[in-house]
Amino acid sequence: MKITLDWEVGASTDDKIIPEAFIPATVPGAVQLDWARAHNWPPVEEAGNVEDYRWMEDSYWRYCARLPAFTVSDDERLFFVCGGIDYQFEVRLHGDLVLEQQGMFTPVELDISDAQPGDILEVLVYPAPKSHPKSDNTQPNQSCKPAVSYGWDFHPRLVPLGIWQEAVLEIRPACHLRRAETRYTLADDYSCVEITLDIALSVPSNVRVLWELRDPDDTLLFTREYPLHDAQLSINTSLAHPALWWPNGQGEAARYSSEVTLLSPQGTIVDHHSARIGFRRVRLVTSAAQWDDREVDTIPKGPVKPPITLEINGRMIFTKGANWVSPDIFPGRISDDLLREQLDLAHAAHWNLLRCWGGAIVQRDAFFDICDECGLMVWQEFPLACNRYEGTSAYLRVLDQESRAIILRLREHPSLVIWCGGNELDMSWSKMTEQDGALRLLNSNCYQLDPARPFLMTSPLMGMGHGGYWFLQWDEREVFQIFAEAHCTAYTEFGVPAPASVEILTRIIPAAELFPPRTDGAWKSRHGYNAFGDIENLRNLWLELPTITKYFGEMTSLTTLVESGQLLQAEGLKCIYEEARRQKPVCAMALTWCFNEPWPTAANNSLLSWPSHQKPSYSAVRQACRPTLASARIPKFSWRAGEWFTPELWLLHDGATALAGGSISAVLECGAQRWPLLTWDYAGTAANTNLPGPSIRFLLPDLPFGRMRLLISAIGHSDWNSAYTLLLQESS
Amino acid sequence: MKITLDWEVGASTDDKIIPEAFIPATVPGAVQLDWARAHNWPPVEEAGNVEDYRWMEDSYWRYCARLPAFTVSDDERLFFVCGGIDYQFEVRLHGDLVLEQQGMFTPVELDISDAQPGDILEVLVYPAPKSHPKSDNTQPNQSCKPAVSYGWDFHPRLVPLGIWQEAVLEIRPACHLRRAETRYTLADDYSCVEITLDIALSVPSNVRVLWELRDPDDTLLFTREYPLHDAQLSINTSLAHPALWWPNGQGEAARYSSEVTLLSPQGTIVDHHSARIGFRRVRLVTSAAQWDDREVDTIPKGPVKPPITLEINGRMIFTKGANWVSPDIFPGRISDDLLREQLDLAHAAHWNLLRCWGGAIVQRDAFFDICDECGLMVWQEFPLACNRYEGTSAYLRVLDQESRAIILRLREHPSLVIWCGGNELDMSWSKMTEQDGALRLLNSNCYQLDPARPFLMTSPLMGMGHGGYWFLQWDEREVFQIFAEAHCTAYTEFGVPAPASVEILTRIIPAAELFPPRTDGAWKSRHGYNAFGDIENLRNLWLELPTITKYFGEMTSLTTLVESGQLLQAEGLKCIYEEARRQKPVCAMALTWCFNEPWPTAANNSLLSWPSHQKPSYSAVRQACRPTLASARIPKFSWRAGEWFTPELWLLHDGATALAGGSISAVLECGAQRWPLLTWDYAGTAANTNLPGPSIRFLLPDLPFGRMRLLISAIGHSDWNSAYTLLLQESS
Repeated sequence: MKITLDWEVGASTDDKIIPEAFIPATVPGAVQLDWARAHNWPPVEEAGNVEDYRWMEDSYWRYCARLPAFTVSDDERLFFVCGGIDYQFEVRLHGDLVLEQQGMFTPVELDISDAQPGDILEVLVYPAPKSHPKSDNTQPNQSCKPAVSYGWDFHPRLVPLGIWQEAVLEIRPACHLRRAETRYTLADDYSCVEITLDIALSVPSNVRVLWELRDPDDTLLFTREYPLHDAQLSINTSLAHPALWWPNGQGEAARYSSEVTLLSPQGTIVDHHSARIGFRRVRLVTSAAQWDDREVDTIPKGPVKPPITLEINGRMIFTKGANWVSPDIFPGRISDDLLREQLDLAHAAHWNLLRCWGGAIVQRDAFFDICDECGLMVWQEFPLACNRYEGTSAYLRVLDQESRAIILRLREHPSLVIWCGGNELDMSWSKMTEQDGALRLLNSNCYQLDPARPFLMTSPLMGMGHGGYWFLQWDEREVFQIFAEAHCTAYTEFGVPAPASVEILTRIIPAAELFPPRTDGAWKSRHGYNAFGDIENLRNLWLELPTITKYFGEMTSLTTLVESGQLLQAEGLKCIYEEARRQKPVCAMALTWCFNEPWPTAANNSLLSWPSHQKPSYSAVRQACRPTLASARIPKFSWRAGEWFTPELWLLHDGATALAGGSISAVLECGAQRWPLLTWDYAGTAANTNLPGPSIRFLLPDLPFGRMRLLISAIGHSDWNSAYTLLLQESS
Repeated sequence: MKITLDWEVGASTDDKIIPEAFIPATVPGAVQLDWARAHNWPPVEEAGNVEDYRWMEDSYWRYCARLPAFTVSDDERLFFVCGGIDYQFEVRLHGDLVLEQQGMFTPVELDISDAQPGDILEVLVYPAPKSHPKSDNTQPNQSCKPAVSYGWDFHPRLVPLGIWQEAVLEIRPACHLRRAETRYTLADDYSCVEITLDIALSVPSNVRVLWELRDPDDTLLFTREYPLHDAQLSINTSLAHPALWWPNGQGEAARYSSEVTLLSPQGTIVDHHSARIGFRRVRLVTSAAQWDDREVDTIPKGPVKPPITLEINGRMIFTKGANWVSPDIFPGRISDDLLREQLDLAHAAHWNLLRCWGGAIVQRDAFFDICDECGLMVWQEFPLACNRYEGTSAYLRVLDQESRAIILRLREHPSLVIWCGGNELDMSWSKMTEQDGALRLLNSNCYQLDPARPFLMTSPLMGMGHGGYWFLQWDEREVFQIFAEAHCTAYTEFGVPAPASVEILTRIIPAAELFPPRTDGAWKSRHGYNAFGDIENLRNLWLELPTITKYFGEMTSLTTLVESGQLLQAEGLKCIYEEARRQKPVCAMALTWCFNEPWPTAANNSLLSWPSHQKPSYSAVRQACRPTLASARIPKFSWRAGEWFTPELWLLHDGATALAGGSISAVLECGAQRWPLLTWDYAGTAANTNLPGPSIRFLLPDLPFGRMRLLISAIGHSDWNSAYTLLLQESS
């Protein structure tokens, strides 16, 4: 039985000082949201007044709740239960310290059975952790506090604090389920699965365990009862020919239900636990192409690059997806509905994986439940990003505690396929290596608690690539050339920025600064300019106005600017995804940076504007990620009359079944004019296998400046058709 | 008190069958040695009759010893103690099973206090482990049995079995030391060391612990007594300005003595333990040159190569040494004297590290004691090599047990600086990756039990190189070009083969086959030909007669053949060591393959012929590894009159102090003729820093075919002088 609490919160400058005033607190939430609400501030995502919040990260925040009336019988216990408190805190009951903790991911579960109605429960939240006073995003490098809040190229500095998950009282039977976990081992040929139910009771007790297993159609497979005389029980069973859990695009994400009920000797229900489980085998493997890599076949001889091809249930999968950067500045207000909306979009985009980036939080269970359901695999990073997390004993102690909590909470989810130490840890700016205590600890904890799930030290590893993050690079190469020349085993981050819609821009940027864009003010604080600070090459990130005008001329209106920038993002990302797919099996992954954003930016690499507004690139990427599509490798974006136009046709196929032969035609369209270019009679292809086709060779006629479209049509398969918008420039 | 046992041993085809006959057994030893001795066979290393031993690997071997008279008082216990039994075995006492074990590295310590004089103690050794029936060196890929015994390019197939370490009875006081381990933590600035003594008693007891610490000069630093009421005790102390343990060439290998005595309430000595400890900090770091590596500064951006520079006590060290492959086919007969002799040679060669290769055994404590004493660092691999060790639960269980035993036994040694998963595990022929359970288990166990010591998954890692193993490669490049063009972070294996001495060859090869060398028979079985089987490029390994004749013409005698082959090895290895040193700090290590050999080969990459006969390459390598030397980068080995001779001068310096300026001169000598080439007035150099010098440019005059010598002399430092023998061919 849950008992909700009425929380209030107050700020002070010292842990010994009681706040002068308390304001109502929304739990789950954040102290910043409570303060803004109490003082009638406009929402920060609209007002952009992040500086007004700055003092809050250095305050002590005292939550208080007076316990309501309740009755706890002799065979019951009273618990204070909370999924997470951000970040360092104490819990006190009628003034007595009952818990001190650092870390927002280790849940709180306190037996406070000696509490009485009317007692005061306090949660004192400390200032945000900082390893040094200089205000930058290296400050969290001795904590497990997600680094993004300390300021990033798409995130203002605003460090949330407070109770970010549900915090309630629970009256539980003295004997209740402390743990009920369903594990399994698949036979090598998938013909059978051995299932183990592990139960731990709060106290040894004379109860019975009822275990029910239901198949994906909710048909009851069995009901079994076991007497229990101890506090622990492991029960085994096996199931022949289980339906397997497959990622999106490869089959059903079949899930079984495992239901556990504790029954008293009299047959009354004492406790209950229900879980959805999916049977699948995951491995990270090296493709045959990698084992034979001629690059390493030299003397002195080096090793093969680390494996990054996901093999699910024995089938090598090309991984398509995106980097997930948390959909809100405040983790405490991310609703299940918002998660559902965004994950549905990810599923509809034919993606099969999200990389949950280490700069952000590890999401709540609801995120993983939805991913389990819709076949979205998850690459989950621990909260380390772009910093050097030195392995001091104090830091390793917190990391050990937090990582264990995260692993134990999530390891039952079939969607979770990769643990990863964190983001960009072995780069010249972070300088961590495989010898660092933090990374060895994480690898060890994952291996000890969850040995069958792959662990990556960081991203990128050798052979993998991060970037670029623009349509046109400083060396004048476009994504069209950059990715055709690259030969990574996985593109785990790449991006092309685009401005937000006119409607959003109008809301977040004062009218006087809006057009032409001012390089300071809101365009800058909303990440349109100097998003990484004053680095010469990167000064125009993320608006990239010089690139836009280079292709489309001087911008005459905000509408044109937005439309032009968004076109570059859409065509650029389509190019990269399709190129990465062409490089299969040497390449095994394409994950764009990034899917969502935590507040409304003026320009950013995301496909969605906060919270879930699609940029045109979303549809373009969805097209590029279809299981099967007729595709073209196009040498560049901008063309002139008199040039040879030489796209190369491909049939991209990630589907789980073979394709028969057929015909694909290519047409060039410019205004009202159309030139048939080629018909390719292709021979069919095996499951999960691409087919390269012929190259077009067409002399571009003299045409007015503007756009042209290359249309690739698959006869009888219009759902495979593709269209590419390109630029036709005036003859030079 | 130790009681030795008289062992006998017999063979049978089944574990249920008692051998028909027993023969005397030497313990420690091997069943093969016992059988050969009992049957008056000549030593296998001379006779080469390895086929005669083949049946023994598939037999069951039953050791028996009748317990002699002994008296165990009420406050004593009787133990059967053995350091290691090879490989799978049972121990029985008067017929009752008391232990079943797989693994030769986990010591046996059995309380058999119910035994009586006259009882029979049996050790039943199973056949050698094989994962499949095909007789090749992949058979041990599901065991921790060192792979080399199953046949290698320098090792015949001969799989030792039996009791390979001392096996005795011990009468111990009921309360004795189960563990006494001295650990320490150095202050960041080395000004102080915190020392912890961990003690575990066999039973809780009312004894006193006397702890004495002595400095490297054996001066008593303190004596302390502690009462003990429990079975465990941890005692801390600290020491200001400790003398540090330094590797060879960087300072003293200072060692302290930690002595523990258990005293009864009456003051009598109950038990005693003594250990030598060395204080040092070890890290594997990435050099500044690597962090700035332009190779990875591309878009998409990859990570930096893994760190392989040893930093000892804050000082980056260039690592010079060799691969150690165990000095005998039979681990059970490697004497302390043999270890001492070889390790003294390693020390005299100015080496600071031996890589104990994963194909061979992990040596006994005596090896590490000597390494501790003489500043030889050890890179210790677990017993995995060149195979795919699949992570089945049976294999992981043995690997877990064996690796824990190895780590716990060796972690107190200051010389041990790197743990490594094994040899060449992520190559195309082994196909293991960082995702393999075996490698994750080893990393995890090392981290859990010994977190401060670096762990490498395998060798080579990305950036490191293995090979080549010949003077002239199939692409016609010599080591002079191959290594000048390479840019590895560490050369952890490289070799140039040479034949054994005439005296050894005459002993191991029948006179009729000796000269000219026959490509079958003993030259082949002793690894002179087809050492890797019938691989086209490698057919002439390890004699490499075509290379020898290419440089020196048709061989006219065995003496000339040996002298020519040995010259190529000496000059080739000198070139590689000096080139690797020139590439510092991008390159951090040079370890030749290999130092010793386990039986007498006809030709091999080793510097020593079995057991410890120096080839001329040993002196050459010792010259190349001097802390300071005047060196030349020479473009090639073989020259012609009329060519421009263009060596580049270098002052190589790995010493711990700076050098003042001076002069270095170069002279070319050919027969009686001498040409002064250059005098270089160098400016001095910092500690541990090389100094590049000028390039010579000299037109080679017309001279008769033969050898010429380049002599580099450091004025006032004749111990830095170098001489290179080169070939002068007839003008073409």
